Amino acid sequence: MEKRIYRHNEVFPLECGGSIENLEICYHISKEFGSGAEKGKKVIWITHALTANSDPSDWWDVLVGEGKFLDPRKYTIVCANILGSCYGSTSPSSINPATGKPYLLDFPKTTVRDVATCHNILMEHLGIEKIDLLTGGSVGGFQALEWSIMYPHKIKNMVLLACNSRFTPWGSAFNESMRMALYADPTFASGEGGKAGLATARSIALISYRSFEGYNTTQYEQDEDCTFPQRAASYQRYQGKKLVDRFDAYSYLSMLNLTDSHNVGRHRGGVEKALGMVKARTVCIGIDSDGLFPVVEQKYMAQHIPGAKYLQITSAFGHDGFLLEWEQIKEIIENEELI
Amino acid sequence: MEKRIYRHNEVFPLECGGSIENLEICYHISKEFGSGAEKGKKVIWITHALTANSDPSDWWDVLVGEGKFLDPRKYTIVCANILGSCYGSTSPSSINPATGKPYLLDFPKTTVRDVATCHNILMEHLGIEKIDLLTGGSVGGFQALEWSIMYPHKIKNMVLLACNSRFTPWGSAFNESMRMALYADPTFASGEGGKAGLATARSIALISYRSFEGYNTTQYEQDEDCTFPQRAASYQRYQGKKLVDRFDAYSYLSMLNLTDSHNVGRHRGGVEKALGMVKARTVCIGIDSDGLFPVVEQKYMAQHIPGAKYLQITSAFGHDGFLLEWEQIKEIIENEELI
Repeated sequence: MEKRIYRHNEVFPLECGGSIENLEICYHISKEFGSGAEKGKKVIWITHALTANSDPSDWWDVLVGEGKFLDPRKYTIVCANILGSCYGSTSPSSINPATGKPYLLDFPKTTVRDVATCHNILMEHLGIEKIDLLTGGSVGGFQALEWSIMYPHKIKNMVLLACNSRFTPWGSAFNESMRMALYADPTFASGEGGKAGLATARSIALISYRSFEGYNTTQYEQDEDCTFPQRAASYQRYQGKKLVDRFDAYSYLSMLNLTDSHNVGRHRGGVEKALGMVKARTVCIGIDSDGLFPVVEQKYMAQHIPGAKYLQITSAFGHDGFLLEWEQIKEIIENEELI
Repeated sequence: MEKRIYRHNEVFPLECGGSIENLEICYHISKEFGSGAEKGKKVIWITHALTANSDPSDWWDVLVGEGKFLDPRKYTIVCANILGSCYGSTSPSSINPATGKPYLLDFPKTTVRDVATCHNILMEHLGIEKIDLLTGGSVGGFQALEWSIMYPHKIKNMVLLACNSRFTPWGSAFNESMRMALYADPTFASGEGGKAGLATARSIALISYRSFEGYNTTQYEQDEDCTFPQRAASYQRYQGKKLVDRFDAYSYLSMLNLTDSHNVGRHRGGVEKALGMVKARTVCIGIDSDGLFPVVEQKYMAQHIPGAKYLQITSAFGHDGFLLEWEQIKEIIENEELI
């Protein structure tokens, strides 16, 4: 996979008002793409989750990479960094042309539809006419689903993993707790970084990604007689720090707002009508222990997307199963002949 | 119920080192207690949860109060405020005799055993020899269970609601997220209040008390076409503010540490051995949607407490069901002839 940047030379209008002037979309693509060697190869487009980047051979390395199941030499594989994320696309740390300084908290609110529009612009720029397999988990699934509704004839097969068709109040309660954490740290509002708030937000998010069983399996205190167990607590702090070292608090806020915007039914007469517009052959995959997007959500999508199928995978690790249970996902893509 | 204060005139040593010099225990008790009218009446002792107080006719008003199922005129009803809480017992806002100033972050770490010891001291002070029914939910259940192991012959019947015998890594992950939120707000460490952190902590806690279904039932956005739904988010902020208006951030930290200390097996050869020491006739009640203390936890206690029974109640509201599903709880206490 090779990292490239697409620079859009038109103003990019946003769904809920405002616009981005110098839109840049950072993406990864099969190295040889553009050399002519890509001709006749099937196209796989992967959409990434909340804090991931455009290189699926980094965060989905078990599935994607040379010699792996999804080999970028065999297929044209594309993944674009979400607008607002800090991994190369236009984001809160980009220069706001109105002030000559980074946007930070002035970065406009973006929606999943805006991100799907970005993907589509990039697809047109690349001259790709049809995607053979579009897939994403969690927020990646939001983008895939939205895109498949906006441009139904462009997607042949689609795998939606551990996601839903409209973000829930349950999800928003997590998001708001994270926003409160960001703002509890005064260095966030002052533009000085918001690191303590970001670490806290990550700790909260982690709970939503895991499960009772998963924590109890991996974080049990070794010392049975310990008065104040520290293992699970230090794990939370460690994961918080890890995100702070690689992610930006202002981009994190942008990602939270993005997920809150997810509602395929908006201005389309409701979710069921919108799901009815999908033309792709779709498989919705649920994870039995997912507490953030319980399986009832993927079953619902499969019920309302014409011809869609619901399949379930097993994991002790909750929502994060979409990153960990790659063998079960691979099996489904193979068995269902999705690529 | 009448509020009273017990002032202990001995130094109170703590399980994990340190001591409290001027221990005060704030408690509520049937008004007539001490007049002689209490003679022959059965004793009901109620232990309260994380941020509640010693007046169950306040927070469990559906069950406790004059004319209610648990009538303080019919029974001697007692409830004591947890050591470290901000509702009248010695706490971080009490004066530290070593400095002449409020303890705040210097308040020593206390354990569930320390709190059970306080209850026992109060019981002796009141001249109560046997408790006919000891009951508590959540952290209230921790205290009841611990007490019934420390003084097994003093408790006749016990109802443990939505709790467990050892705090889990899952629970500690929530606790640590809340501690991180407290410290993300610099006014916490500086002793100036920590209100933004406390509000965030409450928002996090609330998620653990509720359920996917509960949120989706009560916090669904009215406007189907809304781009950035606000209902669930404003509910989180509202609940955060509500706690800030009635609770203290330093006491909150003390309560978090307290719950982390919960392990009836500590220095007793393990949880199962400890549970085997209970003499009270015990009913463990689980709530089908409780995500913080899933029913597997109460089933486990019932399995290891001699002669105990497991019973389940139904709620869409998760852990908070122990406060809301009072009719089902009342029915169990009646049917099982626990009082």
